[in-house]
Amino acid sequence: MLTYSIENRGGRSLYEYFYECIRKDIVSGALKPGERLPSKRAFAKQNGVSIITVENAYGQLLAEGYLCSRPRSGFYVANIQDRMRESGGGCALDTRSDEDGSVRFDLGARAMPAESFPFATWTRLMRRISADGREELMNPSPANGVLRLREAIAEHLREFRGIEVSAGNIIVGAGTEYLYGLLVSLLGRDRLYAMENPGYSRSERIYASMDAEVVRVPLDDGGVDMAALRASHAEVLHISPAHQFPTGIVMPVSRRYELLAWASGAEGRHIVEDDYDSELRLSGRPIPALFSIDRSERVVYMNTFARSLSPTIRIAYMVLPDGLMRRYWERLGFYSCTVSNFEQYTLSAFIREGYFEKHINRMRARYRAVRDSLSAALRAEMPEGGFGIVGQDSGPHFLLRAGSRHAEPALRERLAACGVRVSFLSDYYAADAMPQPASENVMVVNYSGIAPGQCAELARVIADALKG
Amino acid sequence: MLTYSIENRGGRSLYEYFYECIRKDIVSGALKPGERLPSKRAFAKQNGVSIITVENAYGQLLAEGYLCSRPRSGFYVANIQDRMRESGGGCALDTRSDEDGSVRFDLGARAMPAESFPFATWTRLMRRISADGREELMNPSPANGVLRLREAIAEHLREFRGIEVSAGNIIVGAGTEYLYGLLVSLLGRDRLYAMENPGYSRSERIYASMDAEVVRVPLDDGGVDMAALRASHAEVLHISPAHQFPTGIVMPVSRRYELLAWASGAEGRHIVEDDYDSELRLSGRPIPALFSIDRSERVVYMNTFARSLSPTIRIAYMVLPDGLMRRYWERLGFYSCTVSNFEQYTLSAFIREGYFEKHINRMRARYRAVRDSLSAALRAEMPEGGFGIVGQDSGPHFLLRAGSRHAEPALRERLAACGVRVSFLSDYYAADAMPQPASENVMVVNYSGIAPGQCAELARVIADALKG
Repeated sequence: MLTYSIENRGGRSLYEYFYECIRKDIVSGALKPGERLPSKRAFAKQNGVSIITVENAYGQLLAEGYLCSRPRSGFYVANIQDRMRESGGGCALDTRSDEDGSVRFDLGARAMPAESFPFATWTRLMRRISADGREELMNPSPANGVLRLREAIAEHLREFRGIEVSAGNIIVGAGTEYLYGLLVSLLGRDRLYAMENPGYSRSERIYASMDAEVVRVPLDDGGVDMAALRASHAEVLHISPAHQFPTGIVMPVSRRYELLAWASGAEGRHIVEDDYDSELRLSGRPIPALFSIDRSERVVYMNTFARSLSPTIRIAYMVLPDGLMRRYWERLGFYSCTVSNFEQYTLSAFIREGYFEKHINRMRARYRAVRDSLSAALRAEMPEGGFGIVGQDSGPHFLLRAGSRHAEPALRERLAACGVRVSFLSDYYAADAMPQPASENVMVVNYSGIAPGQCAELARVIADALKG
Repeated sequence: MLTYSIENRGGRSLYEYFYECIRKDIVSGALKPGERLPSKRAFAKQNGVSIITVENAYGQLLAEGYLCSRPRSGFYVANIQDRMRESGGGCALDTRSDEDGSVRFDLGARAMPAESFPFATWTRLMRRISADGREELMNPSPANGVLRLREAIAEHLREFRGIEVSAGNIIVGAGTEYLYGLLVSLLGRDRLYAMENPGYSRSERIYASMDAEVVRVPLDDGGVDMAALRASHAEVLHISPAHQFPTGIVMPVSRRYELLAWASGAEGRHIVEDDYDSELRLSGRPIPALFSIDRSERVVYMNTFARSLSPTIRIAYMVLPDGLMRRYWERLGFYSCTVSNFEQYTLSAFIREGYFEKHINRMRARYRAVRDSLSAALRAEMPEGGFGIVGQDSGPHFLLRAGSRHAEPALRERLAACGVRVSFLSDYYAADAMPQPASENVMVVNYSGIAPGQCAELARVIADALKG
């Protein structure tokens, strides 16, 4: 029977307090996956609180996926241990600090303050479309998205990314993960897919969930190591040349041509260029896309509005070369588009009428201000030569290489104890590929959730944790 | 070089006229897949019209998928021949009548008149949510959908479908096709999937595009033929027991128990119950779901709002038994939800505040009125005993078995010549499974796009085509 002392709850409401206690026990493993929780009534009685309080706490845990419920049976602890181990950050559920007290500085997840999304403009456009475009809204969208949105995307790519594409080569879908699925159906599940190491374990898991085999290829200073790529016998390479995550490497043009030569060197080779966050380049000119210098139809370009605009808008797109586009129509053209017409038409008006550009400029200005304050504050707090910042030219994250007498595990604990939630470069290496020694004590600082006013204090807290 | 005489264009605008001419040539095969069209400039000059006119015509053909375009190269004829052959209706692109003149009565596709969707209510709710729920809207949705929507769906299922489920067993996704994909990942790509024959070729193509093997199982009067199912060695059966498409068979309860016994008879067997259109039952009580009598956790329930509400809302859901739900969290719980928060919260308010129920009642009343007028008009026009209507208890389609001295191919032509677009039962049989003789000259009459006032004339036109 679960009992928690309500004397330690501090300023939190009762329901928040119980929510925190149970979550902590699940994250720590004190409550095991599959374990049955006491009924709401029993829990309430045991802890001397109302059933409503327990309902709220259980409801929140259920919503966040810590619990599952079974009808006529009760609440059970969800299996999040495996996911926590494998995920290496990126998902709020997995890497929340479970230290006492709350997270003061969350540098671990992509946060998007509610005020950053232009709600008023978005709903105004939506209302207009709902009033004027009823016939269009009721017509099923073509499989690859409504023409008006694809034209708006093509125009956007031409103006801001220097990519010339026809609207007919664009496929709109509900998120990049969905588009990965289409790609695997199109390119073949029997191919070997290569991903960067370090990189997002999430993309790897997605390919794997579609029964495609994935191999990790190490990086050198210019991105994917060519010799290792060749030795891997992979046929499809998934990369982010404009801003590799998490290293921030911008792939030099020579490596780009090497990769294109690799791709055209054998039948069936393709490169998936995941260009997310390329809009958020904070210094200098945008990096040209690999797609735009490809002459052999081997590059698939992919980007999403979920990151640049808001996670609540689930719209991504990919651009296929002509050959793959024909294959798409032949094999997958009968599919329904996964994005509602409402959102397709709203987004197309949002882009065409210049609001997307304004939004990107606003976000860039914000990220630039935070990055500048934060690096200035770090310079002020840290001993000279005791740290280094890498990959700061594209928002909203950089690597912080920190000199410290503490080893990485101790450093993690010290930071967590100070309320700093942050992931480390080593989290992004595949389990079976040892990180290089140089990647130790390197933090991946995602500052999208940090306000400029918080930077001085955050730098102080980090510096204290490093010294100790 | 394409040249069309503009003297025959009748009352149509120039751009519509050229659009029609080219489309006709593509559908008929006069323009071959992959063939390059003249440049806009060349076409304009040749036909003595402005480039804008040609742009509009090409643009429309591109939007509808008749053409593909390649940057710096031009416009090419898309390969729609294969799809036309295989699709057997359901998709406007594939089965449009290409006879001269327009389609007067479209009985072939699910049409949804714009006025049937409650736009005003929907946008009012959206606006309210955008004003009051910004924090919620910016929080990423759990993989299986936001709790509030899943609770609203559970409540709806309880009240209107008699199904008791927990919100924790519901997975929300951008359309049933997307959910099929999750299911295949979950159940395994190496299983044999069985589908009904006749049935939707679309579902079969979706499973096939995910590299799952599909077998078609014939029907008897009670639905899936049990002996054939056993002999097929299939492990997963995809069915619509409440209202089989296109036969309209309502599976009797004895067959349901037989199927459940089959499913629990061996490890790994599952039934996917696709319950679409079950809300649109027009007579008597709703048919209980197979899911609700399953005690061995073998049934996955699936339904969509795209059909009951509007094709513009791309939200579907499935209900997994506990065992599969645990597997979902373990294997696929890291996925992002494919439906935007905006639409999830709007739909949950729409259901909770009773608008969905009102909408369903309105649609049911409309379909009942059309069905009654149409069958009365057919009775008035047709010789007694010369026709039969089957499966009319659930909207919005029924089978019309028509006595005619014309064989099916001739009948199709006669109907098309009168401007009636309709598919036949034989279209829904797998290519390698010959339809039974009894299924000849049976039309699948989808009356969702027909207004009550059109029924008398439609019946007259059909009767004339049959007699001739």
